[in-house]
Amino acid sequence: MKIGIVYKFDSVEIAREVAEFLEKYGYQAELHHIPSCALEDCGMIVTVGGDGTILRTLQELKNPPPIFGINTGRMGILTHASPENYGAELLRAAEGKLRIEEFMRIEASHKDVRVTALNEVAVVSSVQARLIEFEVYADGELIESMRADGAIFSTPTGSTAYSLSAGGPIIDPYSEAICFTPISPFRIGWRPWVLSPERLVKIRISELRDALAIADGNKSMEVGAGEEVIIKKSENPARFFEKSSRITDMVAKMRSMK
Amino acid sequence: MKIGIVYKFDSVEIAREVAEFLEKYGYQAELHHIPSCALEDCGMIVTVGGDGTILRTLQELKNPPPIFGINTGRMGILTHASPENYGAELLRAAEGKLRIEEFMRIEASHKDVRVTALNEVAVVSSVQARLIEFEVYADGELIESMRADGAIFSTPTGSTAYSLSAGGPIIDPYSEAICFTPISPFRIGWRPWVLSPERLVKIRISELRDALAIADGNKSMEVGAGEEVIIKKSENPARFFEKSSRITDMVAKMRSMK
Amino acid sequence: MKIGIVYKFDSVEIAREVAEFLEKYGYQAELHHIPSCALEDCGMIVTVGGDGTILRTLQELKNPPPIFGINTGRMGILTHASPENYGAELLRAAEGKLRIEEFMRIEASHKDVRVTALNEVAVVSSVQARLIEFEVYADGELIESMRADGAIFSTPTGSTAYSLSAGGPIIDPYSEAICFTPISPFRIGWRPWVLSPERLVKIRISELRDALAIADGNKSMEVGAGEEVIIKKSENPARFFEKSSRITDMVAKMRSMK
Amino acid sequence: MKIGIVYKFDSVEIAREVAEFLEKYGYQAELHHIPSCALEDCGMIVTVGGDGTILRTLQELKNPPPIFGINTGRMGILTHASPENYGAELLRAAEGKLRIEEFMRIEASHKDVRVTALNEVAVVSSVQARLIEFEVYADGELIESMRADGAIFSTPTGSTAYSLSAGGPIIDPYSEAICFTPISPFRIGWRPWVLSPERLVKIRISELRDALAIADGNKSMEVGAGEEVIIKKSENPARFFEKSSRITDMVAKMRSMK
Repeated sequence: MKIGIVYKFDSVEIAREVAEFLEKYGYQAELHHIPSCALEDCGMIVTVGGDGTILRTLQELKNPPPIFGINTGRMGILTHASPENYGAELLRAAEGKLRIEEFMRIEASHKDVRVTALNEVAVVSSVQARLIEFEVYADGELIESMRADGAIFSTPTGSTAYSLSAGGPIIDPYSEAICFTPISPFRIGWRPWVLSPERLVKIRISELRDALAIADGNKSMEVGAGEEVIIKKSENPARFFEKSSRITDMVAKMRSMK
Repeated sequence: MKIGIVYKFDSVEIAREVAEFLEKYGYQAELHHIPSCALEDCGMIVTVGGDGTILRTLQELKNPPPIFGINTGRMGILTHASPENYGAELLRAAEGKLRIEEFMRIEASHKDVRVTALNEVAVVSSVQARLIEFEVYADGELIESMRADGAIFSTPTGSTAYSLSAGGPIIDPYSEAICFTPISPFRIGWRPWVLSPERLVKIRISELRDALAIADGNKSMEVGAGEEVIIKKSENPARFFEKSSRITDMVAKMRSMK
Repeated sequence: MKIGIVYKFDSVEIAREVAEFLEKYGYQAELHHIPSCALEDCGMIVTVGGDGTILRTLQELKNPPPIFGINTGRMGILTHASPENYGAELLRAAEGKLRIEEFMRIEASHKDVRVTALNEVAVVSSVQARLIEFEVYADGELIESMRADGAIFSTPTGSTAYSLSAGGPIIDPYSEAICFTPISPFRIGWRPWVLSPERLVKIRISELRDALAIADGNKSMEVGAGEEVIIKKSENPARFFEKSSRITDMVAKMRSMK
Repeated sequence: MKIGIVYKFDSVEIAREVAEFLEKYGYQAELHHIPSCALEDCGMIVTVGGDGTILRTLQELKNPPPIFGINTGRMGILTHASPENYGAELLRAAEGKLRIEEFMRIEASHKDVRVTALNEVAVVSSVQARLIEFEVYADGELIESMRADGAIFSTPTGSTAYSLSAGGPIIDPYSEAICFTPISPFRIGWRPWVLSPERLVKIRISELRDALAIADGNKSMEVGAGEEVIIKKSENPARFFEKSSRITDMVAKMRSMK
């Protein structure tokens, strides 16, 4: 089996060790600093970096192989092991002894462009510190209309990322939903919306000002004043090797953020 | 078909009109001021009152027939029609021409006692204006531990009721989830949790003080200091005749609450 | 100088030690388990307990002598020293070498009854888990009208107590203000109000249900449906010996609460 | 008396009418499209536009004459009259028959640059959709340390502007305070701080990224990574002619924002 290894620039040494380790056990290891769709041909992917490395990798992949994350950054809630202790668990993953868990992704499309996100798509003003005006629709029904710094559409996995900063709830990673959380809306009354994952969600930007739609804080597309972005569940989930401490790690991260 | 009519005390006149109307069309109408499990034998239930009348009715029913609500109170988001315009739609419901929608309920159990709720189960101190201490577990994993005025476990339908007052998100009524929202927790950092409907949720009350678990603001059970309550999705959903304006009515109600 | 010592029931041993210590240095020490207005004749008061002991003491005193707190409970933000290290600082207080700081109190009056609070006056339903309806006025102008579990009127000192649980801001203890924070209001839009300390604030309870006004979680007075409570700054502040770590302790407590 | 008239570009016709009106009553009227410090020589200023016109005007004035606002925009809470009904009240202002009310402003200084704001100074990342890291100090004591989209330091007047969007409380305009509200902080636990107006407040930006300090959404200054901004009460308040409906208008605006 070919195993792709994607690494963060400061973790190249550990990535090489991981490659050697895997080759010693008969696997073909392929190092990638910059993730590309070529990784879809691998049987699995090992990331060496933080949660951000995983997010960057997934953005390039339409149909992602299962991921095993080795954490070299701050606390990671998507990663499985540390550089000191990855060996046994990584072999179990490679040998097919770990269950594979699927996590919903969302995609945002605008004209011919489409971006996919594991965490969220944020729609913000293209000018710093300026409000945008927008309407949000679920299956064609208007659910919100506001002026705000922006709008976040997140998955359950993303509920502990940017959506949380904006005031969103914590959503069980073992569930599916599309969560809409506004960013600093100019009004006193609002709540996040946790929508069914089957909903076709639409945001229409008013004529006031151009916007940017940014997937996982990384990939952006321009959205002109008066235009729309469609957000829906992606057909292709992210796939991760099982991790028994997923909820515990999430709770621990919440506490560390306080 | 036998049709049960449950009415709020101040709506008895309208309830009698509804009964006559149904009998004119060949249905057997049965008036109930106090709902009981006898209603399970009916082919459908008509409520004449507000959302509260529906909640009270459902609490008595393990396996509820589909409900058609005639609203005589404030804005109802569960009701289908008003006393002025129920005729045609009610006949369509009785004739089986309306789709029946199912909405998740939750049940809370403690020792031998069990209560079922369409909106929420609230666990509060048995003494006014006193904190309780508790831990919340999802499938055995500790997710929260706090001192607070109480804890709310709500369904999506209940997300616009007490949970909303306590700071919970709006959850798509066409989805399933168990939402935990604390009531005035004594700390600066907390978020509501939107849990998978498959979770077995547990709240353990500390030795500090006795508590009450209250279903839909109506039915309560005592929970001693140091004891636990199990909350999970009920096997028997509530069933309502379809209502095309469900989301629109929810949004309208949110706005009226501001 | 006569020094009153008020102690929590579980701290009587330490209180006796403090009394001996003070008498050794020539002060007249008087032990009080239950605080009363007799303490107003003392030159200063030493409390042995937690912040709650200080709150209970102040409630009995119209014109309180300066307080020095010895903390035997959880983290105290009003107390000055621990049972292990109070000696030198307590002597400095007794000798007049510490500056005396004044902190605003509020008083709530209803008919002939008046209660004074250092932290807050909370107005809640007299029945557990039931909403009250009320209007809030500042100098006669209506600023809020809502249904909620209750209403909190707090001082800056109280901003880190019950008001904080209900969602209120942190207010500089070295400032004066009357903060109104609703408890779980039944609507999506609301904000705490930080009012000028000179405002005459009024809450009018609707006909729906009777209420209780509770000062510092301790002293309550009944407020009938349809009646009003007047809240304003008390003419007699609480007085504490200076404490250089006041802000640092507050910040530390906030963090411990997360 | 010379009266300066500052107008928004789309309100020039009304501004000319106001000038004629004032000249008819013997006052010298001077039209300004772009406000400048020359306005300090006027005995009073009339603005024709919205609250934004008033904010822009005040930013140019170290020692502002009293302002009378004629509202040609959306709902204004700083303005006094509409184009249809300003006559009598404007004359009363000009004749000295209206009381002049003072409202605190804040100033932010960084190196040699200083900006003054009636509403707020917002410190945000100089790059769109990126966090900054910062620490906030009050009189040298660390009160917060966080990663966030930004930080807002507002006056009571500004509590209903950007600070409100970010989750800040409503502060009595007839009081003084410096309110710190973070913008989408990356953590679950935080509260706005309402600080004494006498505090010297400091924000130190971490080495992570450059920032911008923006006064009243209008005037910005660059703040390099690792640098500080000092925020304090300005010695020169804004001055407005009295307006009996100030609180009522604020409450009405809050409601309209829901």
